[in-house]
Amino acid sequence: MGFIRNILNSRSPGDGNFFLKLKSILGFKPKSKSLYIKAFTHRSMNIKDKKGNAINYERLEFVGDAMLSSVIASYLYEQVPHGDEGYLTKMRSKVVSREHLNELGKDLDLIDLVQSRIPKSNFGNNIHGNLFEALVGAIYLDKGYKVCERFIYKRVIYPYVDIETLEGKVISYKSLLIEWCQKEKNTFDYEVYEDTGKDELKHFSVKLSINNKVVSKARATSKKKAEEKASKRAFFAFQKQMTKLI
Amino acid sequence: MGFIRNILNSRSPGDGNFFLKLKSILGFKPKSKSLYIKAFTHRSMNIKDKKGNAINYERLEFVGDAMLSSVIASYLYEQVPHGDEGYLTKMRSKVVSREHLNELGKDLDLIDLVQSRIPKSNFGNNIHGNLFEALVGAIYLDKGYKVCERFIYKRVIYPYVDIETLEGKVISYKSLLIEWCQKEKNTFDYEVYEDTGKDELKHFSVKLSINNKVVSKARATSKKKAEEKASKRAFFAFQKQMTKLI
Repeated sequence: MGFIRNILNSRSPGDGNFFLKLKSILGFKPKSKSLYIKAFTHRSMNIKDKKGNAINYERLEFVGDAMLSSVIASYLYEQVPHGDEGYLTKMRSKVVSREHLNELGKDLDLIDLVQSRIPKSNFGNNIHGNLFEALVGAIYLDKGYKVCERFIYKRVIYPYVDIETLEGKVISYKSLLIEWCQKEKNTFDYEVYEDTGKDELKHFSVKLSINNKVVSKARATSKKKAEEKASKRAFFAFQKQMTKLI
Repeated sequence: MGFIRNILNSRSPGDGNFFLKLKSILGFKPKSKSLYIKAFTHRSMNIKDKKGNAINYERLEFVGDAMLSSVIASYLYEQVPHGDEGYLTKMRSKVVSREHLNELGKDLDLIDLVQSRIPKSNFGNNIHGNLFEALVGAIYLDKGYKVCERFIYKRVIYPYVDIETLEGKVISYKSLLIEWCQKEKNTFDYEVYEDTGKDELKHFSVKLSINNKVVSKARATSKKKAEEKASKRAFFAFQKQMTKLI
């Protein structure tokens, strides 16, 4: 049993931490716990229900993918009144791209919740996005469309989606941020340090301060990328003030 | 003006019949009428809003398509517990196939509501499905997810979707119906007559009676197809009793 316990993650559903961490991601208390356990069960666990159907997160991905598409579709319909069907489709595929979903899942550290018999280091990059989709699917089935929509707004649309970027109007958030700071007479500072952590690839972490207060943090594989990411996050925090510049 | 009036359809939104017919399709009273007018405005009308954005049904198709995908996805998730992600995706694409959407739009005679400067005979077959998608999009934006979901259940899932057919278990509804009638000692009768109507293609109409009571009607381009369609409709009316045979 020690072996099994070791290859399972510390925050597996048997662990009280699982629901604690989950709740902090969701922002609400789950009703049907089994749905969320399923959303973080990898196929390698080889669990089946009474009828022999596999229990893992893959079918939930199907539901979550559809919900993401719907919520983003109606958001874009309202926000981009000049875009035709083809343009809206293209914008949506940027938002729900594999790459972006992986980023979302990674930012929430969803992999920490996975129950699996495969070591985490063996998973490909797509597991992050897959878990994010599965979680969205579980939320829909547990709490319905409204709550699921709110989650997508909170975790996808507000922090990451902005029409200006999607339309290619913002090229660099860093330059936008600097321009805004200069105009508003704010001081700013990017504190960058090398941070390899457990990754094989060299990573950089950055803390962005405005008027000596840390406003955002980011981590990426290059100094430039990390700064851009932190600037983007700050942009969304100050969105109302800063969009006047665009 | 006589010219314009002539090329518009008799049930155009200016006409009281438009909302009367629409209400009978929807099963509820629309709140935002302009959304439904848009859902039936063809691009050939060349209407623009104050900001110069085109007003026609094409952007609503984008929203409707997403809503159909979501509702069908969660329906299949519940109904097909043994199907993996790939299988569910395949089943959904059968339900929302271009061909099927066209059939749905045609059955509701949506083209009768279209406002266009192009004669109806010049439209391709896809307009039926496009209008159906646009209508679903308008319903979502007007009344929210729950009402939209109910509409999709009423107009797509209950009358047309059954897991047995999608899984390839039912080959002929006619033979299923006959088998059931014989087993239950019911009499049945298919009354078929040629009915070209306004179509260029020859059509057949069929009335299916069970115990001398008409239970379903259908129309198709062959006698066999019309009988099968009528049998399928009867199947859904008697679903509970008949599925015991499968």
